[in-house]
Amino acid sequence: MRAVVLLSGGLDSYTAAAIAKSEQGFELYALTIQYGQRHVRELESARTVARALGVERHLELPIDLRAIGGSSLTADLPVPRDRDPGASDIPSTYVPARNTVFLSVALGWAETLGAHDLIIGVNALDYSGYPDCRPEFVAAFERLAMLGTRAGVEGATFRVHTPLIHLSKGDIIRRGLALGLDYGLTHSCYDPVGDGAPCGRCDSCVLRARGFREAGVLDPLLLR
Amino acid sequence: MRAVVLLSGGLDSYTAAAIAKSEQGFELYALTIQYGQRHVRELESARTVARALGVERHLELPIDLRAIGGSSLTADLPVPRDRDPGASDIPSTYVPARNTVFLSVALGWAETLGAHDLIIGVNALDYSGYPDCRPEFVAAFERLAMLGTRAGVEGATFRVHTPLIHLSKGDIIRRGLALGLDYGLTHSCYDPVGDGAPCGRCDSCVLRARGFREAGVLDPLLLR
Repeated sequence: MRAVVLLSGGLDSYTAAAIAKSEQGFELYALTIQYGQRHVRELESARTVARALGVERHLELPIDLRAIGGSSLTADLPVPRDRDPGASDIPSTYVPARNTVFLSVALGWAETLGAHDLIIGVNALDYSGYPDCRPEFVAAFERLAMLGTRAGVEGATFRVHTPLIHLSKGDIIRRGLALGLDYGLTHSCYDPVGDGAPCGRCDSCVLRARGFREAGVLDPLLLR
Repeated sequence: MRAVVLLSGGLDSYTAAAIAKSEQGFELYALTIQYGQRHVRELESARTVARALGVERHLELPIDLRAIGGSSLTADLPVPRDRDPGASDIPSTYVPARNTVFLSVALGWAETLGAHDLIIGVNALDYSGYPDCRPEFVAAFERLAMLGTRAGVEGATFRVHTPLIHLSKGDIIRRGLALGLDYGLTHSCYDPVGDGAPCGRCDSCVLRARGFREAGVLDPLLLR
């Protein structure tokens, strides 16, 4: 059975895809959106990860969200450093409507493929408070998918699978390691330094470090 | 007050934008998606119409939906001719998740602009049965917008305005003419012939012709 997975090149979407493949037997159609992100380095990781996952197809689609800006990932604003990712404010790395846009394209591709399953590695526990990572958002998208597609009108039920949504970062990494994943292939940092090395201070680096610490293993990216 | 309007270059979105501007006083931010449509001619009309409307800004964003295909507007499939647009099947000109994708980008732009109003010229009466033109779809999108954005979490209510949704094509044209619109600037045909002239036989041409007939006026495009 086919499923479309949103693959960023980061640790979460890699793990979500691997869980969906190994536990549910999905044939993976990986979608990566080149949205003009500051950390364009993650696109190389997405390609490597797609190969490692043995996806049926990897589609990279440009949607240049720099045209609308509004985020430190897509506009000329500084990426916050040494922040507590669990703070209650939503940081400037929030990209307006990003997951809504990404899931919409995934939905269109799924419909063309005859698939009714989408996979996204969102997490609502160790995260930066982005609203479009929460279960209520995902449920609202499933409803929209049913109402806005020919397949939905004809009776199909679209499911958005979020295998990581309630896991801690440590648990995500433990699950992935148990599946044999190589996190050295991934990239998480929002604001990599010159040679692509992680900054160690953005939310994404901080959450990643916390996860490896919790899991009691070393991050292979730091062993290079 | 700012609003983002989806502007295709066709008759409906032009009218919807004009109604929103004249009756609600919105400052218009027009968004046109270059989605790889067969009738790329409509993009020129979108530019002309945006100027005629006096929009604050016109953003044209490429999202190449030919990469996912699945429609006779984005893949190498014939556009149906001489069809009854009111037939119960959804024709091959349906583009998977098109309005979901378009509204998602509009939402992101609106959030960046500090706007909470989106305008779309969908019509659920004289239309081709596309699921993403119906009121229940629009309502589901409003809910998604509230749940998936920072502005929504902070208490904003996004509204998707659909001033045409229950009008007949004749009524749409009457409303537009009363507002002084020049429909000679628009383009509706899905499958224009060599010089950009309308084919006269696709759903979009058939609906347009029916509208002008109902309104009792001549289509200025046919006077050229």
